[in-house]
Amino acid sequence: MSAPSRADARALDETDPLAALRERFVLADGVLYLDGNSLGPPLKASLDRLEKTARNEWGGGLIRSWNDANWIDLPKTCGAKIARIIGAPEDDVIVADSVTANIFKLAAAAWRAHGGALACEAGEFPTDEYVLEGLAELVDAPLKIVEAGDDPFADGARVLVKSAVHYKTAKIANIAKWERAAAEKDALIIWDLSHAAGLIDLRLASQGARCAVGCGYKFLNGGPGAPSFIYVARSLANELRQPLSGWMGHAAPFDFAAGYRPAPGVARFACGTPPILSLSALDAALEIFDGLDLGAVEEKARALGDFFLSCTQQLGFASASPGVGHPRGGHVSLVAEHGYAIMQALIARGVIGDFRAPDLMRFGFSPLYLRFQDIWDAADALRAIVATEDWRKPEFSVRQAVT
Amino acid sequence: MSAPSRADARALDETDPLAALRERFVLADGVLYLDGNSLGPPLKASLDRLEKTARNEWGGGLIRSWNDANWIDLPKTCGAKIARIIGAPEDDVIVADSVTANIFKLAAAAWRAHGGALACEAGEFPTDEYVLEGLAELVDAPLKIVEAGDDPFADGARVLVKSAVHYKTAKIANIAKWERAAAEKDALIIWDLSHAAGLIDLRLASQGARCAVGCGYKFLNGGPGAPSFIYVARSLANELRQPLSGWMGHAAPFDFAAGYRPAPGVARFACGTPPILSLSALDAALEIFDGLDLGAVEEKARALGDFFLSCTQQLGFASASPGVGHPRGGHVSLVAEHGYAIMQALIARGVIGDFRAPDLMRFGFSPLYLRFQDIWDAADALRAIVATEDWRKPEFSVRQAVT
Repeated sequence: MSAPSRADARALDETDPLAALRERFVLADGVLYLDGNSLGPPLKASLDRLEKTARNEWGGGLIRSWNDANWIDLPKTCGAKIARIIGAPEDDVIVADSVTANIFKLAAAAWRAHGGALACEAGEFPTDEYVLEGLAELVDAPLKIVEAGDDPFADGARVLVKSAVHYKTAKIANIAKWERAAAEKDALIIWDLSHAAGLIDLRLASQGARCAVGCGYKFLNGGPGAPSFIYVARSLANELRQPLSGWMGHAAPFDFAAGYRPAPGVARFACGTPPILSLSALDAALEIFDGLDLGAVEEKARALGDFFLSCTQQLGFASASPGVGHPRGGHVSLVAEHGYAIMQALIARGVIGDFRAPDLMRFGFSPLYLRFQDIWDAADALRAIVATEDWRKPEFSVRQAVT
Repeated sequence: MSAPSRADARALDETDPLAALRERFVLADGVLYLDGNSLGPPLKASLDRLEKTARNEWGGGLIRSWNDANWIDLPKTCGAKIARIIGAPEDDVIVADSVTANIFKLAAAAWRAHGGALACEAGEFPTDEYVLEGLAELVDAPLKIVEAGDDPFADGARVLVKSAVHYKTAKIANIAKWERAAAEKDALIIWDLSHAAGLIDLRLASQGARCAVGCGYKFLNGGPGAPSFIYVARSLANELRQPLSGWMGHAAPFDFAAGYRPAPGVARFACGTPPILSLSALDAALEIFDGLDLGAVEEKARALGDFFLSCTQQLGFASASPGVGHPRGGHVSLVAEHGYAIMQALIARGVIGDFRAPDLMRFGFSPLYLRFQDIWDAADALRAIVATEDWRKPEFSVRQAVT
């Protein structure tokens, strides 16, 4: 099969039902941005909202804005928007803290209720494992790191942290199937939706998922370090006590009463005062999902990835991600011994992806602003770098703090 | 003693060594803002920085800004600025998460190292107690809520959370004395600096304090829900394992290695990805403290409070705070049965303080932008409301979500 042409790419763009969304983003000049799976770019609405929140609400309204600008409800109202994106009831999601902290809260609460071993698969995003380690040490619970493909529940796991889309391979987990397996052992799965929310047509509630956490700054485009979200089905939430029981999760925080009394439902998973500036940027970014068909988003992500694989198939890189025509999340990882230097050479040409040690070049295909022609151009840059061996220049092997 | 005149206030402003700092703030028109102890107003520098961070660094730099704009080190560089404000070594403070989460991390780590009971005084800011409750339940540790004035260490407490300045009364704790008492029992005090940092001339290290948390959005003016900071003396930090062991606290987060290996020192208390927009606003706000004499700040805060007490002494309110001439933090709380309605009537006149149930009207005196004439005007408004019984209007008793 011959590689697609740029004309092929443009033809695909012509019929892209999501093409109009691109203009709602601030897109940097001279950049092909294939790292929206790591940090989404800003929507114009987010920059506007941030200025309004900072200047008018903080500067003008001051403390009154907790009421007048409804800052106090923002974790819930923002959570309701995310609930619609992930297929959960609107009242069962709030925005709070980081993914790490939310995994801790959920895993600790679930472990208190279920006992047994904590578990995650080897090769998950490291923070998922790290924070289970921290919890396991604190409460003296067993921690199982199971090989992918093995049944974690067979080995005594009662609380499993599992990615819906894998951060390296972009493989998509079958949520309904996993939930059936967990239900058989009365175990609980904490879904990490970091690489799935805003990208995959998640239907958590109907697939039996009862709790999840996710990231605001990837496909939700909420801004660097945007707060995380947490979903807990109401029937479960009311049975759980999470240990980071701060005043914002209290049933009546402004009573300043002695004794913690958890708020009903997922609201009890709130902890301290939320970072309103970051939260406002996220909240504004979610508007683009209003009425959007997530099925079309997922489909375009896969099509962009397929197109990239088709464009690069003759370069000799193995793919660590599912191949053309297979279900896949929003990125493609290519294996390359000199992947770090090659990615640096790409970045120097304005094609921005990222690198995941030891040898993966990761290219993200955010369907809300990327065009097939962008993918073709990125693949073309990669072809040129491989052909010229441009990546051998010494400056491209100098490690940055964040890679 | 007769109440001071407005001319007295203006005379005090004439000789105020901090008067020039006021112009660096964005101050809302028609407002006397006496709630900087709850949410500080923005500095112009913060609004400028926020726009730069959002538009240039996020929008223009995208993922590259983790390196190019040094986002990755911001928790440390911002922490170093706070270290100078609280009298701690520069490398021993980072910015991360919320006060609640940071108390949890420190208390859990300290309890693992020390065992014994967790403790706080009755009447502390509720989240301090709530989160100790959550930890105590999770690890099955005893929790002691001791009466103020009683010796918590006599009763088996080995980990005490204690405010440096009380959120209601503004009483200042004698840190050195408390640390000596703790040292005798090999106990650890987690200082909650929320109402002290940026206001009191703290000298934590020289007074023997080894760990503390504090709030970015009060006297540090970092913005609504600004991230919190955490101080742990290096010798202690290296012995502690905190359970929210996320990737940002790993010694080498971008190795994506299996197994948590804590970063040296306080850096191990980082957890998830920090909210960069909120963090940038805080970082810019700290510039005003550069070279500032915290002794002069503390002295002016007390003088403003004394002046307010002098102006209001004839109104018949008891003070829950230390009286004129006594050490006191940055606010004064007056007791009033109808305090909620009186405060609402004040806010309607543009004098903004807050209310703490059941009966405290709290007036904050942030010395960086308030003038003695502002205090006089606020007291005058209070006088008028009391005289006219304006507060009896029905609209002033309607409770807001946040009070």
